Amino acid sequence: MKWAQSITVTLRTIRTLSTVVTCHARHRRMLVRFVGFGLGAATLTTVAAASGNTNADVLISPLDVSSFMAEPVTPLSTLVKDKDDMKVKMEMLIMKIQADFCRALENEEDPSTTFFVDRWTRAEGGGGVTCVIQNGKTFEKAGVNVSVVHGILPVDAVRQMKARGKELIGKELPFFAAGISSVIHPSNPHVPTVHFNYRYFEVTQENGEKMWWFGGGTDLTPYYLVEEDVRHFHSTLKKACDQHDAGYYPKFKKWCDEYFLVSHRNECRGVGGIFFDDFEMHSQEDCFKFVKSCAESVVPSYVPLVKKHKNDPYTSAERDWQLLRRGRYVEFNLVYDRGTKFGLYTPGARIESILMSLPVYAKWEYMHSPSDGTPEAKLTEILKNPKEWI
Amino acid sequence: MKWAQSITVTLRTIRTLSTVVTCHARHRRMLVRFVGFGLGAATLTTVAAASGNTNADVLISPLDVSSFMAEPVTPLSTLVKDKDDMKVKMEMLIMKIQADFCRALENEEDPSTTFFVDRWTRAEGGGGVTCVIQNGKTFEKAGVNVSVVHGILPVDAVRQMKARGKELIGKELPFFAAGISSVIHPSNPHVPTVHFNYRYFEVTQENGEKMWWFGGGTDLTPYYLVEEDVRHFHSTLKKACDQHDAGYYPKFKKWCDEYFLVSHRNECRGVGGIFFDDFEMHSQEDCFKFVKSCAESVVPSYVPLVKKHKNDPYTSAERDWQLLRRGRYVEFNLVYDRGTKFGLYTPGARIESILMSLPVYAKWEYMHSPSDGTPEAKLTEILKNPKEWI
Repeated sequence: MKWAQSITVTLRTIRTLSTVVTCHARHRRMLVRFVGFGLGAATLTTVAAASGNTNADVLISPLDVSSFMAEPVTPLSTLVKDKDDMKVKMEMLIMKIQADFCRALENEEDPSTTFFVDRWTRAEGGGGVTCVIQNGKTFEKAGVNVSVVHGILPVDAVRQMKARGKELIGKELPFFAAGISSVIHPSNPHVPTVHFNYRYFEVTQENGEKMWWFGGGTDLTPYYLVEEDVRHFHSTLKKACDQHDAGYYPKFKKWCDEYFLVSHRNECRGVGGIFFDDFEMHSQEDCFKFVKSCAESVVPSYVPLVKKHKNDPYTSAERDWQLLRRGRYVEFNLVYDRGTKFGLYTPGARIESILMSLPVYAKWEYMHSPSDGTPEAKLTEILKNPKEWI
Repeated sequence: MKWAQSITVTLRTIRTLSTVVTCHARHRRMLVRFVGFGLGAATLTTVAAASGNTNADVLISPLDVSSFMAEPVTPLSTLVKDKDDMKVKMEMLIMKIQADFCRALENEEDPSTTFFVDRWTRAEGGGGVTCVIQNGKTFEKAGVNVSVVHGILPVDAVRQMKARGKELIGKELPFFAAGISSVIHPSNPHVPTVHFNYRYFEVTQENGEKMWWFGGGTDLTPYYLVEEDVRHFHSTLKKACDQHDAGYYPKFKKWCDEYFLVSHRNECRGVGGIFFDDFEMHSQEDCFKFVKSCAESVVPSYVPLVKKHKNDPYTSAERDWQLLRRGRYVEFNLVYDRGTKFGLYTPGARIESILMSLPVYAKWEYMHSPSDGTPEAKLTEILKNPKEWI
């Protein structure tokens, strides 16, 4: 492990430089380029030569972190050492998804607006990278959060982790959780809000048994219904699902409609997408590949809708409707969302990263109800009666 | 009971009239004056002569509903028949408190702004009267809700009713609940928000045992701290408490600080007040008198602060701070408030009346933190470290 340690030391040393350093350690070569970006975090370009028993001359990138928004949470030495461990694979995946999504959103923004990147650590173990745009031209609020945390899980949090049929033995359990979570609230009411979250859990029960599972989903919340857009969104997700199992999309589409129900209003939060939890029915590797496909479908499912509508004209009445719907979004997130509850009940959780999903502005009006025949009423009707889109 | 029935019939008949009717029934005289006010509800002035064994010539008003914002929830015939039952006494009290508070607030408003009065019924039993001002000059949102409901309580709602040590036997229990609940969100950031809620519960357990208890409280949420105002508020509540037991104020002040804690932020919602639950330690009558004193102290504790600050000048930065604090208010109400949860989990509950407590506008900003030495930081400091005010 010496070389990994030496790289870590080297990385620490070069943190203050903006240069290119080549490190040789044992039989490996590593090119490390530092790019400072003024937000207390750093992007590290790491091109490691394949080593060990394989052809050391072929440059591949088992740990290419060059595009990440910040240094990963786990020390690079550990990432390299344990690169075949699912914990590491998941961290690498979500760091990459975060970067790809953030860059794609920045492309839709005013060039002066880029993501604010906050790399944070959790005293109880782990940390995360939170990327935020606030009051941008295209995005009123865009939050893309990665967290990689571990420690002991308290009772209240255990309860929130219990999806269908997931019973855990014990009251305080060692756990590991790596996830990416994002909510995008655009400025223009004709651009829908999107949410996605992909996560991997490991829990060791009191009897010593280790359990793991994946969960996640992507769902859309339009303020105005454009059926063609919704079909594009769902089709893209379906394509990602179908690569793995033709039964996934119908099953996870239904689960999504059921999960994102604001039950006290008897309406769905949006027009759905896919949602799954306790995903462990295949080999860990197969599960991971499915999650990867889903996560990679976020950009193609959503960004075209931003591009299409971000410059649509809109009225103040349409803006008002958007804010009222954001009030409903807040209701769902604070009253029902299991991810939010898991966060709120986890000691040392980073509240700002959890509640980053809340919009800049939300509105509530007593007894508001859109008039019959309006586009607002059309949306409401769909939210009360979710339908098949493809 | 004939006379009561005849009055009910008479009331129904005169609902479409605006006139004065005198009804004679048995030995009682009753003057019924109808005043329509265009909101699907009616104000009934009922002056009943004392009857039976007492001096029938002395006009007293055991059921004076003349000032109420709308007709009570329970039919007048039942109210008259059961006027000594705590269910009736509580309904009469909260209808009167609602009216007194609404009138006092209207005095601080632009004359063109009056409460919108919504009288509603609950299919499962009971109903309520919801009074709302929205986008007034003084009050951005003012909601004063009375509800008198009964039926069967489901498991989830039972859970929310369980205050400290209140264990209920059974899973689906017949219940009665009468309460007044109010949240006032003023337009001017220098006027604090107030919340109060006084309620009476009866639950019949599976073993047939009937339990009853009162709960309630009044608390203040300023955006800017004026210590003198907070002292006035607390002193008024203390005076109400001290009439009954010198131990009440200190005990219920502490309970309030503990209850209105936004624990994921580790800060109190506001500067407290009083809060109590499971109040049943004395005779029912003594408990009622205490609750009555508390409810009657709302106007003198709060309205002077509205009068004092409603015309204070303020900046857009101060308005912004007010909206951010309202975001925290939403967090407390949706994540922790037991009353809200009780409502959300009660089938047939009137969601609009429950969520009337939410502000018109709320705001969230990632990592917002007031600068040291500012009035905003001063408030935050107090919210993190609740203190004794008197």
